[in-house]
Amino acid sequence: MDGPVFFENDPFSPIAYLYQVSEILYHNKSPYQDIMVLNSTYFGKMLVLDGVVQLTEKDEFFYHEMLAQVVLHAHVYPKTVLIIGGGDGGTLREVLKHKLVEKVQLVEIDKQVIETSRHFFPGLTTGFTDKRAELIEMDGISFIKQTKCKYDAVIVDSTDPVGSAEGLFTEEFFSGIRNILSEDGIFVTQTESLHFHRQFVVEAQIKLRGLFEIVGLYNVPVATYAGNWWTFSIASKKYQVKRPNRSQEVITRYYDEQVHKNAFLTDNLYHKLLNNTLDW
Amino acid sequence: MDGPVFFENDPFSPIAYLYQVSEILYHNKSPYQDIMVLNSTYFGKMLVLDGVVQLTEKDEFFYHEMLAQVVLHAHVYPKTVLIIGGGDGGTLREVLKHKLVEKVQLVEIDKQVIETSRHFFPGLTTGFTDKRAELIEMDGISFIKQTKCKYDAVIVDSTDPVGSAEGLFTEEFFSGIRNILSEDGIFVTQTESLHFHRQFVVEAQIKLRGLFEIVGLYNVPVATYAGNWWTFSIASKKYQVKRPNRSQEVITRYYDEQVHKNAFLTDNLYHKLLNNTLDW
Repeated sequence: MDGPVFFENDPFSPIAYLYQVSEILYHNKSPYQDIMVLNSTYFGKMLVLDGVVQLTEKDEFFYHEMLAQVVLHAHVYPKTVLIIGGGDGGTLREVLKHKLVEKVQLVEIDKQVIETSRHFFPGLTTGFTDKRAELIEMDGISFIKQTKCKYDAVIVDSTDPVGSAEGLFTEEFFSGIRNILSEDGIFVTQTESLHFHRQFVVEAQIKLRGLFEIVGLYNVPVATYAGNWWTFSIASKKYQVKRPNRSQEVITRYYDEQVHKNAFLTDNLYHKLLNNTLDW
Repeated sequence: MDGPVFFENDPFSPIAYLYQVSEILYHNKSPYQDIMVLNSTYFGKMLVLDGVVQLTEKDEFFYHEMLAQVVLHAHVYPKTVLIIGGGDGGTLREVLKHKLVEKVQLVEIDKQVIETSRHFFPGLTTGFTDKRAELIEMDGISFIKQTKCKYDAVIVDSTDPVGSAEGLFTEEFFSGIRNILSEDGIFVTQTESLHFHRQFVVEAQIKLRGLFEIVGLYNVPVATYAGNWWTFSIASKKYQVKRPNRSQEVITRYYDEQVHKNAFLTDNLYHKLLNNTLDW
């Protein structure tokens, strides 16, 4: 590896990562975080928040598709969707692929993330000009306390659970989410790496299992996230979530019906994970 | 990340990796490669060959189980097994868990890898003293030309396809493997990362599809391998390989029947991969 590098030293990761970069395209501090856009030799443009890679042009779809498409295919008729976080627009893009969706609110605390993404990542931000999308500049915890709407799907697309994102993983927050879901609503949130943050995954699952009828855990391999075996925790009031409940009508690059099914942790490993009897 | 680090700058990876280490336990050059054993704060002892992490105490079982258990559960009655490479012993340990297995030959070019592993990784090398195991110090390419045996399973457990390992991925080598397999034999080899080495994966698959009746591609997420979405190419003369063909009688930490099934790339993605129509 020659030339300038970006050194990612995520405090939540036992491995640090070095990316070869050609230039820093943007670097600024918002009231909430340090925002940087880099040009990476291999991954294209990269969005970095507080020193941690959030997405790259090359591989962002693995994460965004798996965050949005599993919940939207598990719901039979998702009309109203709430996204908390996701200011880069990738999750919104995925949600709006669904013609059934009539209304999406995206609640992002940091408008500078939205502005930065619109400037540098046009492939992610197509949804911002869709008439069905409403952008709300607010923190998600306050928003769910005051909204009067009910949602068929709520998606939390957050950074690592530190600072302003920490409150998005509490039992109180998950309970608040349940209250704003419709009677057949489904919730999904990213829950870090099964390799590096297993205890965090387990705690999120246990909280959700105390509140929801149906809870699942699935994953996707992301090369640019520390630990890579990236998990999503999904919680549903009515519909089973391990298989799509309607056929796929949207174009995707990674997600498909079989990917949906195969992504869930096996029953055996899931049982051991919750009972803390995994042999690793 | 404070204190001393090991800097892994794999020429096959667009990301370089830094591991926090407490000490270098061993460092030597064999006739074939640079051999290092490090103590890592998080991953325990690590074996490093030519500067690339081969295994860590903490997570080696993901790779070794998935390399060995899929082929051994796809075969109905595996009596004779050949391992090429795998001098650390991890694959041999997995193969010998099967009581059906009567004979395993392990052909390793570099005896210093075996000796180093026996000294530093006793959890991997239990198989070396098993009566069913025979260690042969030779390169695998020469061995398969001269062996008179037939094998129910052949497993290639190699380093990255450079230097002495390069010849383990040619059409000529795969054809030689086919010749030494029994009539219902199965072959499996590691084939790098689907994220970082896709062209290599495709080429291996195409070569195998020209030689074998049944070919598959499956994967496991390994945090300590560059690109992490690690693939295995499996080729079979008779048995389907996407599901176990007999029930599991061995104790594993990650592998199970459902893991076996879910690990295979979906039909849709596999088709696109081979036709070079993946949208990434």
